[in-house]
Amino acid sequence: MHVKLTLEYDGTNYHGWQLQTNAVTIQGTLEAVVARLLNEPVRVRVAGRTDTGVHALGQVVSFKSERVIDLNRLQHSLNALLPPDIVITNIEPVHEAFNPRRDALSRSYRYQIWNHTWPSAIWTRYSWYIPFPLNADTMNQAAALLIGDHDFSSFQGSDSVERNPRRTILHSAVRHEGEFLRYEVEARSFLRHMVRNIIGTLVDVGRGALSFERFAEIFAARDRTRAGVNAPPQGLFLIAVKY
Amino acid sequence: MHVKLTLEYDGTNYHGWQLQTNAVTIQGTLEAVVARLLNEPVRVRVAGRTDTGVHALGQVVSFKSERVIDLNRLQHSLNALLPPDIVITNIEPVHEAFNPRRDALSRSYRYQIWNHTWPSAIWTRYSWYIPFPLNADTMNQAAALLIGDHDFSSFQGSDSVERNPRRTILHSAVRHEGEFLRYEVEARSFLRHMVRNIIGTLVDVGRGALSFERFAEIFAARDRTRAGVNAPPQGLFLIAVKY
Repeated sequence: MHVKLTLEYDGTNYHGWQLQTNAVTIQGTLEAVVARLLNEPVRVRVAGRTDTGVHALGQVVSFKSERVIDLNRLQHSLNALLPPDIVITNIEPVHEAFNPRRDALSRSYRYQIWNHTWPSAIWTRYSWYIPFPLNADTMNQAAALLIGDHDFSSFQGSDSVERNPRRTILHSAVRHEGEFLRYEVEARSFLRHMVRNIIGTLVDVGRGALSFERFAEIFAARDRTRAGVNAPPQGLFLIAVKY
Repeated sequence: MHVKLTLEYDGTNYHGWQLQTNAVTIQGTLEAVVARLLNEPVRVRVAGRTDTGVHALGQVVSFKSERVIDLNRLQHSLNALLPPDIVITNIEPVHEAFNPRRDALSRSYRYQIWNHTWPSAIWTRYSWYIPFPLNADTMNQAAALLIGDHDFSSFQGSDSVERNPRRTILHSAVRHEGEFLRYEVEARSFLRHMVRNIIGTLVDVGRGALSFERFAEIFAARDRTRAGVNAPPQGLFLIAVKY
């Protein structure tokens, strides 16, 4: 039986998604609980690995089991045994060939900036605190430039070089909501650290350190060394994966 | 100089507001940092003590110092030295006789219920998870009954008997917002555990265990033993104190 799980997690207390021998990760925590319930070793496959401190509202994973499983019962048991910062929000059977990473049509991320004079005691785990004013309109203009099929080398992780740095962005927009400034972006897939590098550079645009024209040049330059800083992980949420 | 501070805190990691010798509290943490910055022992007075795990967006305190203080600078220093789950959102001078508790015209609280089949990994620290359906309309009807000047003995803490159990409720309403059910209540002052006891009883109304008529009877009975459970603290926020 092939099972697809949708999960929500608070990444604060985890060393990211991927299994590590000496650190607590989402994958390790989830696999241990699934294995315990099914009484067999289990390996889960994931739609999109998340880094240390990054959160998810709609991460998707799948695993295979030799057994026929009562899925509703399994979901209840998983949520009873998992720590409160990991929740299974949906469970369903999928066809044998389903691959959560390869079959995804798109992934949506949201990045939250707490843009206020003082930090927030409540939102500190879920946002990047930026005390200086940010121009959301200019940031949104720059964000819109990324929509479409482009070479995103300028925004990929400095420690990684993808064979194909082209990606297709379907949606990319910045808006103010109360004290928050939120960036929403949807693409078929992303380069490593791409969203956080985009945000770091958009913030430079928003505070006036980088003009819209310079942003466009940096984007066109396809050179990682010219973009802004990698924004901190706690503002980032994997919102949904579409199939 | 008499200084008024407005503060926001995440109560998760504290044993409530009030100073204790063997436990970390908001008051203890705040007084230690203020004393360190002013280089003199400081005692703060508070508008409303909060219990273990209860949060605040607009708690108000005041303290006196022999010195003339640069308040803007003090606010920056406090926020730099306080842990990230306590933030000073406003600081201003007040007249000598100001008393944050006695002078308050009203206090507003919000209580959040996460009313969904599955718990939330993100909101677990800030809400009461209730998986069964709640009728917000009936709850709101019952909540409206509390508005005005009444004897609230039925909703006071079982471990405390106030000399005068009458209180004046200015606003009391329940509404659905997405997966949340939110109760907002404003009064000049509250009895101990009053908001959480009201919520516990309103939830009984919402799930149909208690009719609107029975709720009205319990309220009129002025007998704590007949009301519902004390709702858990993590859903409660002290929103604002008016002067």
